[in-house]
Amino acid sequence: MTASSYETLMAEVREIDLIGSTAGLLSWDQETMMPAAGVPYRSKQTSLLSRLRHERFTSPRMGTLIAACEDEPELVADPLTPTAVNLRELRRDYDRALKLPSSLVAEFSRVSSVARHEWAAARRAGDYSRFKPHLKRLIELLNRKAECFGWPEGGERWDALAEGFEPGMTAKGVEAVFNPLRPRLVTLIQRVHQTGRQVPDHINGRSLPIDAQQRFVRNVAERIGFDFNRGRLDVSAHPFCGGTHRDDVRMTTRFTTDKLGDSLGSTMHETGHGIYNQSLPAEHVGEPFGRAVGLSIHESQSRLWENFVGRRRSFWQWCRPLMDEYFGEAFSDLGPEDAWASMNRVEPGLIRIEADETTYNLHIMIRFELERRLLAGDLGVDDLPAAWNEAYLNDLGVEVPGDADGCMQDVHWSLGAMGYFPTYTMGNLYAAQFFEQAQSELGDVDDMFTRGDFTPLRQWLTDRIYSQGRRYLSEDLCRHITGSGLRPEPLLDHLESRLGEVYGL
Amino acid sequence: MTASSYETLMAEVREIDLIGSTAGLLSWDQETMMPAAGVPYRSKQTSLLSRLRHERFTSPRMGTLIAACEDEPELVADPLTPTAVNLRELRRDYDRALKLPSSLVAEFSRVSSVARHEWAAARRAGDYSRFKPHLKRLIELLNRKAECFGWPEGGERWDALAEGFEPGMTAKGVEAVFNPLRPRLVTLIQRVHQTGRQVPDHINGRSLPIDAQQRFVRNVAERIGFDFNRGRLDVSAHPFCGGTHRDDVRMTTRFTTDKLGDSLGSTMHETGHGIYNQSLPAEHVGEPFGRAVGLSIHESQSRLWENFVGRRRSFWQWCRPLMDEYFGEAFSDLGPEDAWASMNRVEPGLIRIEADETTYNLHIMIRFELERRLLAGDLGVDDLPAAWNEAYLNDLGVEVPGDADGCMQDVHWSLGAMGYFPTYTMGNLYAAQFFEQAQSELGDVDDMFTRGDFTPLRQWLTDRIYSQGRRYLSEDLCRHITGSGLRPEPLLDHLESRLGEVYGL
Repeated sequence: MTASSYETLMAEVREIDLIGSTAGLLSWDQETMMPAAGVPYRSKQTSLLSRLRHERFTSPRMGTLIAACEDEPELVADPLTPTAVNLRELRRDYDRALKLPSSLVAEFSRVSSVARHEWAAARRAGDYSRFKPHLKRLIELLNRKAECFGWPEGGERWDALAEGFEPGMTAKGVEAVFNPLRPRLVTLIQRVHQTGRQVPDHINGRSLPIDAQQRFVRNVAERIGFDFNRGRLDVSAHPFCGGTHRDDVRMTTRFTTDKLGDSLGSTMHETGHGIYNQSLPAEHVGEPFGRAVGLSIHESQSRLWENFVGRRRSFWQWCRPLMDEYFGEAFSDLGPEDAWASMNRVEPGLIRIEADETTYNLHIMIRFELERRLLAGDLGVDDLPAAWNEAYLNDLGVEVPGDADGCMQDVHWSLGAMGYFPTYTMGNLYAAQFFEQAQSELGDVDDMFTRGDFTPLRQWLTDRIYSQGRRYLSEDLCRHITGSGLRPEPLLDHLESRLGEVYGL
Repeated sequence: MTASSYETLMAEVREIDLIGSTAGLLSWDQETMMPAAGVPYRSKQTSLLSRLRHERFTSPRMGTLIAACEDEPELVADPLTPTAVNLRELRRDYDRALKLPSSLVAEFSRVSSVARHEWAAARRAGDYSRFKPHLKRLIELLNRKAECFGWPEGGERWDALAEGFEPGMTAKGVEAVFNPLRPRLVTLIQRVHQTGRQVPDHINGRSLPIDAQQRFVRNVAERIGFDFNRGRLDVSAHPFCGGTHRDDVRMTTRFTTDKLGDSLGSTMHETGHGIYNQSLPAEHVGEPFGRAVGLSIHESQSRLWENFVGRRRSFWQWCRPLMDEYFGEAFSDLGPEDAWASMNRVEPGLIRIEADETTYNLHIMIRFELERRLLAGDLGVDDLPAAWNEAYLNDLGVEVPGDADGCMQDVHWSLGAMGYFPTYTMGNLYAAQFFEQAQSELGDVDDMFTRGDFTPLRQWLTDRIYSQGRRYLSEDLCRHITGSGLRPEPLLDHLESRLGEVYGL
């Protein structure tokens, strides 16, 4: 076949993406706009789109087209060209999609839908026994999925599932990164604790009108680079970043009268995802090449803007005076230094999504180890709560008062998403390594941040990461940009240096 | 085949409705939420859904299933049962859809998409010559469509197109209703004019905070019966009522600081559509039986709530005091009587969508006559502006200063929608006849309205119209409820009586 096979293939792929992105809009609408009574019908719409998408993507015609293109030397000769990258990604996703029998897909969808519902009810009631049988069933199905996918020599079941979230990620690989990180994080947290120093929560705890908070965080999102002509910021119970494509990106955040710091943090986090999506290569919309690399790298950008920029001293030199434009005298007692310090409090706690930048990673490590053992059969669902509570006591020094705030706090497992959690900490690690590199190339970023100028950093990230689409896999991208694979040192250096300043270590 | 053919058919029909309703949500989102840059990609999503829907609906399998069901006596024996109604509607829509070659569908879609764009630009520039060639091309294609559809013996091309908006509606039928109406409307407007009486525009013209206006109209919508657990009210440039199904109805309205009366009117108008949609039979969601009767009857309900309720004296006995809860002292000089009168000002003008309840119908009659002549070839596009301007001078006594506010003011023709306009006035006529009947059965509605009690009326309309879905065609529904076909007298009586009071005729 000739290059026109490639055009035929891409036309089909872009059309499948129209279905997928429509489902994305339905999902955004469900979380932000849809009246409560719309749920049952919406589920039907979403399932139909998901089925139509799956049927088209796994059709024999798709397989024939991919194979025909792979036989064309000029399409695949250089593995970093858009054509070769598209074919690499389609091949992996197509083979993977074909490995699951549709009966298992349907059963998994049914079981996880019930499990999510039961999880929510069990969590509200604080009753793990209600969720347990569903979790057990999900783990059985996850094991069957893993068997269908298979895993590389020397790997394990967890790897087969993680591949769906982050191609190439394995439990051994995660372990190799997490192992050196863990003791140094624990030590760092202990050193902070030993100072006995209390950093007041200056930014939260003041009652501020929601509409002023909205205008403020919107302005910050715009200043760091979100283009509101090509996206929105709305409110949802759990902040997320979705939308349909680079020119229609939908972020959400949330507001509480007395939690400006949390709203700002979650807005900057989602804005990091949003800027990434808005800066993907325009000429490859709807193609695999036009997508972000994977969950870890996507998360690296939310973390970079939230933590490396948004909790940096020089950012607060700019941001603290800006607040007066929105909140009048409410913060007149608070200087930039104290504002900055209060955004960097370390406090071991029960809840992952409320955790600070440092302890957060321990929450992830606990989940990674437990889900790995659950999948391998080394830990039964009966023993999960005890194992969870023991890990929280050992690693974070906190007593878990009940399973609602313990092993049932996250939605992920109830959706059957195992192999996902580590991407959050991988994101922190990548963020640190990228930010370190950006600083070495850009010079004095603090001078820029103090002036509210985030363009040089955003442009650097756009050139190196966003506009590259899916050209590189995560680790290759990291090597390409920083000259080495993922290393724990940049994150540790960053945290030790920042907490050193805040807590005077 | 057995009853299971029917179940198979309905499963397919409901699935096609999931695609159509998803397109409905995309369209709502485009008008209310979507960032401007999203347009090109959104068009691709919408076209794809439209094509998928059309392909499935016109498949030979669908024809086979419909025919098999029609052969089952128990399904069609009683023409008013849901099964028979579903088959009647599917047969008509299926046959009609098959009559258009897909090349013509595609060409029409392309030409009207360009025409709409050029219309907007031509209107902004006030330059009819820019729109003219596109209108000419559209009329040629509309004639080809009409030839494909065909029309009943003794009818004309216009009928073939109108059938798509209002089954059974013909130009001769419309004429028979419009002819007796027109001279009496013209006389009524002249009598108002001759009084020389000016009714001040009390409700508009006061500067009021938008958020207070929003809360006020939302409360009115809720009080007359819109269920906000199953729907929303948002803002768009042109108010409309859409959504996905009865439990997720999306209405819009619009606000200007000094036009509360307009916002209230358009909110009550859309709420009429919204209450209808929310009250369709729940057990037939996604089936033809579960849909509203047609455009005329749908419009009758928006007009009924907007005009027959919302501009009624007793409504203002309730509504005027309510306003103080939202606007403080802003209306303290204004009693219910003056408020009511100001909502019933008659003023012949250029613009249909700004017209009062009485003159509105003349705008429609002018459009009906012109589009009928355009289609029949009795009027060329070169002569349209002159014919338009002459009609406005003769019927409404207004000089048209330019084509932007003349023959280019409405979007309909640029979309290729001819055969649509009369449904608006048919809606007014049906509303009058239904309301007259409701009054005769419910007793003193004014006592109810004064107390803000709209439940008996809404319940009556729900029983007679909304919950009946598409059981009856428009004229049959009217006969079933009121004992006679559509008559001009109820609307004329209503207008003569109301203007008699307001203007002291």
